Amino acid sequence: MGTEQTLEANQLILKQKLKVIDTDVHHELSSLHDLVPYLSDHWKRYITDYEWKPIKTTPFHQVRQGTKHRNDAFPEAGPPGSSFELLQKQLLDENDMTYAVLGGWFHECTVATGWFEFAAARASAYNDYTIEKFLNRDKRLLGSITIPRDPVAAVREIERVGSHPQMVQVMLSVGNFAWGDPYYHPIFEAANRMGLAIGMHLSADISVSGGDFLRYYVAWRSAHPQAYMTQVISLITNGVFDKFPNLKVGFIEGGFEWVPFMMNRMDSAYKALRQETPWVKRMPSDYFRDNMKFSTQPWNDISSEHFLSIVDMMGSEDMLMFSSDYPHWDFDSPKRTLPPKIPQSLKEKILYNNAADLYKL
Amino acid sequence: MGTEQTLEANQLILKQKLKVIDTDVHHELSSLHDLVPYLSDHWKRYITDYEWKPIKTTPFHQVRQGTKHRNDAFPEAGPPGSSFELLQKQLLDENDMTYAVLGGWFHECTVATGWFEFAAARASAYNDYTIEKFLNRDKRLLGSITIPRDPVAAVREIERVGSHPQMVQVMLSVGNFAWGDPYYHPIFEAANRMGLAIGMHLSADISVSGGDFLRYYVAWRSAHPQAYMTQVISLITNGVFDKFPNLKVGFIEGGFEWVPFMMNRMDSAYKALRQETPWVKRMPSDYFRDNMKFSTQPWNDISSEHFLSIVDMMGSEDMLMFSSDYPHWDFDSPKRTLPPKIPQSLKEKILYNNAADLYKL
Repeated sequence: MGTEQTLEANQLILKQKLKVIDTDVHHELSSLHDLVPYLSDHWKRYITDYEWKPIKTTPFHQVRQGTKHRNDAFPEAGPPGSSFELLQKQLLDENDMTYAVLGGWFHECTVATGWFEFAAARASAYNDYTIEKFLNRDKRLLGSITIPRDPVAAVREIERVGSHPQMVQVMLSVGNFAWGDPYYHPIFEAANRMGLAIGMHLSADISVSGGDFLRYYVAWRSAHPQAYMTQVISLITNGVFDKFPNLKVGFIEGGFEWVPFMMNRMDSAYKALRQETPWVKRMPSDYFRDNMKFSTQPWNDISSEHFLSIVDMMGSEDMLMFSSDYPHWDFDSPKRTLPPKIPQSLKEKILYNNAADLYKL
Repeated sequence: MGTEQTLEANQLILKQKLKVIDTDVHHELSSLHDLVPYLSDHWKRYITDYEWKPIKTTPFHQVRQGTKHRNDAFPEAGPPGSSFELLQKQLLDENDMTYAVLGGWFHECTVATGWFEFAAARASAYNDYTIEKFLNRDKRLLGSITIPRDPVAAVREIERVGSHPQMVQVMLSVGNFAWGDPYYHPIFEAANRMGLAIGMHLSADISVSGGDFLRYYVAWRSAHPQAYMTQVISLITNGVFDKFPNLKVGFIEGGFEWVPFMMNRMDSAYKALRQETPWVKRMPSDYFRDNMKFSTQPWNDISSEHFLSIVDMMGSEDMLMFSSDYPHWDFDSPKRTLPPKIPQSLKEKILYNNAADLYKL
C-alpha cells in the first residue's frame, strides 16, 4: 500500500502542468507594408514608392526555397508567424506556454552594413509593430529589441523601448563578425543598465571556417554552431563580463553539447597563457556558468544518460533553456523533446526556471 | 596473500613499458638553403639569388614572436626540430617512443595559392629532405607527404614518394577552405590507392567564424577546432568516404571533445533532411567511427570520469591517438598526459593501437 501511495504521488507530480518558457519564437511581418505606419515620411517611401526589399540570403539549400515552416502554421494570409491569433492559439494555447519570447527582426541588424540610418529606422518600426500587434495583446508574449549594428543608434533604440514591461532582451544577430569587440560595448552597457538580457540568434549571414561550403542542410546545421563559439570566445576574451558582471546572454539555436568542450578548452588555454588578457579576471568556465544560457532546439538525438553527462560536465543545471523555434519546420514540442529519464527538477529548470532567471520573470 | 599477488600483478602491468606512437612531431629546415640540393636550377635560384621567403603569417599573438618552442629544444644551430640528433635523443629516446610521425612542411601546401609550380617544387624538395635527413636515419620515424594544393601536382607527388616504407600519410593543411570539395578527390583517390592515410593539421591560415578576432592565444586555441569541424562536415557531406570506404583520416591538433557533439548533430541533421545528399549512404557517425581518428594534444583539463563519458559518447575506443607536438612549448608527455583512472586497455589504444591502425603498422 505504501508503494501504491508513492506511485500515485509520482503520477500526480507527472500530471502537474509544468510551466514553460519558449525562448525562440519567430513572429513575422505580413508584408513590409506593416512597417509603414511606424516609419517617418522619408523612410516609408522606400517601401511604398521604391519597393525596397531586404537582401535575400538563404543560408543553405534549395529545398528551403519551398518553405522552412511547419505546414500547419500558415495563416489565411501572410507568412507563418505573422498572424497574432494563430500564433496565440497554436503556440501559446495548444502547448500551455507560460511565456514565449519573440525574437524580432534581428537579421536586419547586420545585413544593412553601410546603410545604418535605414536599418535604425526599420528596427524602431519593427519594435513598435511588435509592441502594438503582439506584446500589448497577450501578456504571455515577451519581446526582443531589434537594433541596428551601429552602437550609437542601437543604444538609442534600447533606451527608447527597453522599459516596456514585456521587453526582456536585446537581440544580436550572429553573423560574420564578433560582438565582443570593444566597439560594441555600449550596447552591453545599455542592456545592463536597463536590466535587459542579451540574446544571440544566428542569421543568414553566418560565416564559418571554410567559407561557402554550406551547400546542404546537413552541413549548415552541423557547422553553424561555430558562429556561436566565436561569440562566446569573443565576449570572454574582450572582458565583457568583467565590465558587466551581472549581464546575462542567451545563445539561441546554436546547440549546447559543445559547451563543456569549450569550457574546458578555454580554461586550459587561459591557464597556459593568460598574460595576454589581464582584463579577464576569472576562469572562462565561470563566465559560462554565471553569465550564459543556451537554448535546446534543434534537439539532437541523445540518450538520457549522455544528456546528464553533458549537464554534469557543465557543472551547472542552470545553463539550458527550452526553445521550440515556432513556426519553423523543425519545431520542438515542450511536451516531447526532453529525454525521458532526467530528474523532474532538472526538467523544470530547462523548461522554465533558467529562462525565468535570464529574463528576470 | 591472494590480494597481495593481485596487487603485485597489477604493479607488474603498470611497470610494463607501453608502446607509444607520437602522431604530431614538427621537424624543421635549418634554413631554406637545406632545400637547395633537392631543387632544379630554375627553382633553387629563388632561394640562392632572389632570397624568397614564405609569406609570414602568425596566427595569434605577440608573445609568440619570442618563440613557440620548448626552451630546451634549441639545437646549437638552427631552429628547434631541425637537428635530427636532438630530435632523436629528446623525443624518441627520452620518451621511449616506438614511432613518431613527422608532419612535414604542410603549411606550404596552401599559402602558395596562385603559384602552384613553386609550391610543388618546394613540396618535392621537402619530402626528399625529410627522407634523406630524417626517415633514412631512424626506422622509428614515419613521414607525411607534403603536397601542393593543386590536385594534379599533388597526385604526382604522392605517387613519387608514397611507396617509401616509412611514408604513412598525405598531409593536408587545415586552412580557409574545405578539402571535401570534389575538386580535391583525386588526392584521396591517390592516397587510398597507395595505402596511405590522410592527415590534417591546422596551418597559420585557418579561418573561423568572425574572421580576424583571433588576437589572443586563448581565443585562437579555443576557436581553431572550428576549422576541423568544417573539414569533417565537408568530407562526409561530399561523399569522400562513400567513394573511398577504406580511407582513414587523422585529425591532428584539433581537439576531440567536440567530436561526440558533432556525431550527434550530423546524425540528427541527416535524419531530418538527407534528401539533398543521396550520395551519403551511411549515418554520419558511422564514418567518424570507421574512418576518423583524432589526436590528443593540446590536452585540456578533464577528469578521468568525464573523459570516459566522452569516449562512451563516441561509441568507440578506437578514435583517439596520442600526440606530443614536439618541439612546441605546449608539448604533452606520453607518460603524464592521459587521465590517471582509465582502463589500461584504453590507454594502450590511445598511446599505440589506434595510430597503428591508421598507419597500418
